Amino acid sequence: MQSINSQYPSLLLERAVNEISRLPGIGTKTALRLALHLLRRSEGEVDALAQSLTDLRHGVRYCKCCHNICDADLCPICSSNGRDRGMVCVVENVRDVMAVESTMQFKGLYHVLGGIISPMDGVGPGDIEIASLVDRVAQGGIREVILALSPTMEGDATSFYIYRKLQDTGVSITAIARGVAQNDELQYTDEATLGRAIVGRLPFAK
Amino acid sequence: MQSINSQYPSLLLERAVNEISRLPGIGTKTALRLALHLLRRSEGEVDALAQSLTDLRHGVRYCKCCHNICDADLCPICSSNGRDRGMVCVVENVRDVMAVESTMQFKGLYHVLGGIISPMDGVGPGDIEIASLVDRVAQGGIREVILALSPTMEGDATSFYIYRKLQDTGVSITAIARGVAQNDELQYTDEATLGRAIVGRLPFAK
Repeated sequence: MQSINSQYPSLLLERAVNEISRLPGIGTKTALRLALHLLRRSEGEVDALAQSLTDLRHGVRYCKCCHNICDADLCPICSSNGRDRGMVCVVENVRDVMAVESTMQFKGLYHVLGGIISPMDGVGPGDIEIASLVDRVAQGGIREVILALSPTMEGDATSFYIYRKLQDTGVSITAIARGVAQNDELQYTDEATLGRAIVGRLPFAK
Repeated sequence: MQSINSQYPSLLLERAVNEISRLPGIGTKTALRLALHLLRRSEGEVDALAQSLTDLRHGVRYCKCCHNICDADLCPICSSNGRDRGMVCVVENVRDVMAVESTMQFKGLYHVLGGIISPMDGVGPGDIEIASLVDRVAQGGIREVILALSPTMEGDATSFYIYRKLQDTGVSITAIARGVAQNDELQYTDEATLGRAIVGRLPFAK
């Protein structure tokens, strides 16, 4: 039995709160709220939640082609017949795949880096899937690589590194457009974005 | 294998996100962020989290005396020798026990109602631990019952219901003081609180 001085009346509760509060963005108070909520749910529901977490961690695989999260050797996108295999969109992670997919504007394949070059965080080019991208391009069949990394310092550095690695392969290398966001008001747009949008102006269409 | 039209590249990921997003206050985007975070943690860490949740749900017990969450027949407070067994503080839930305990101003026992009378939510007096409180008082040995429910409509209704049930037992019934909160500025205190603090003024002490 735990000490009377423990903040929690139950060791089981204390352990669950400690484990839950290790999740990012969840503090002790939220963890306690969630733990007490679980006590009001049925045993089956709590078991289903716990099982889904262990199943995810133990069962998840990574696509041999694009390194996206999947359940088989190849992800649903790489194994689809309806995609343009000549275009590869390079993204940082699975969330970015989902973001690009939700636009329904891209019908090619992806390459998930699984991170971004960030010396501050100790992430170098060898820690993310750049070599496999170079291999993939070298195998032929790809005519365009679209760099779709976040327009941050780390994203730009990673894009530039990949560009240097691929510039002599003859493949077309493009990057997603930068400019004023849809429905943004110009007076509230930051100077860097607006300046870049002016320099990168395009012939007026429609 | 799931449909290519699924938003998620992996069924396991989709299932984990669905389960996590059933928690209160956690939407799909946060659930996805948490699931992807778990993929970066070791299998042992994820297993420990999942196990702590099932252990909590299956193993938790409720104190036979005060109905607080605990790991044994009696909670650490009820089984302690250092508490004043003549005083019982009535609270809504385990979080309120922890809140009162953290003040270190109360050395009696608790009675956890496990809810509050709320006709809007379909919670009546029979759904919470009021009958067991009346039994506990009837068994004797208690000289004071302190009502420490939230000063809301439901809390006040529950306090009044308990008062009616106990008023003829001869036990002293008190309620936690209401007034201006410590370090609050008077000009920002709401009228109801300030009005009640004036009506309930006390002889100046120290």
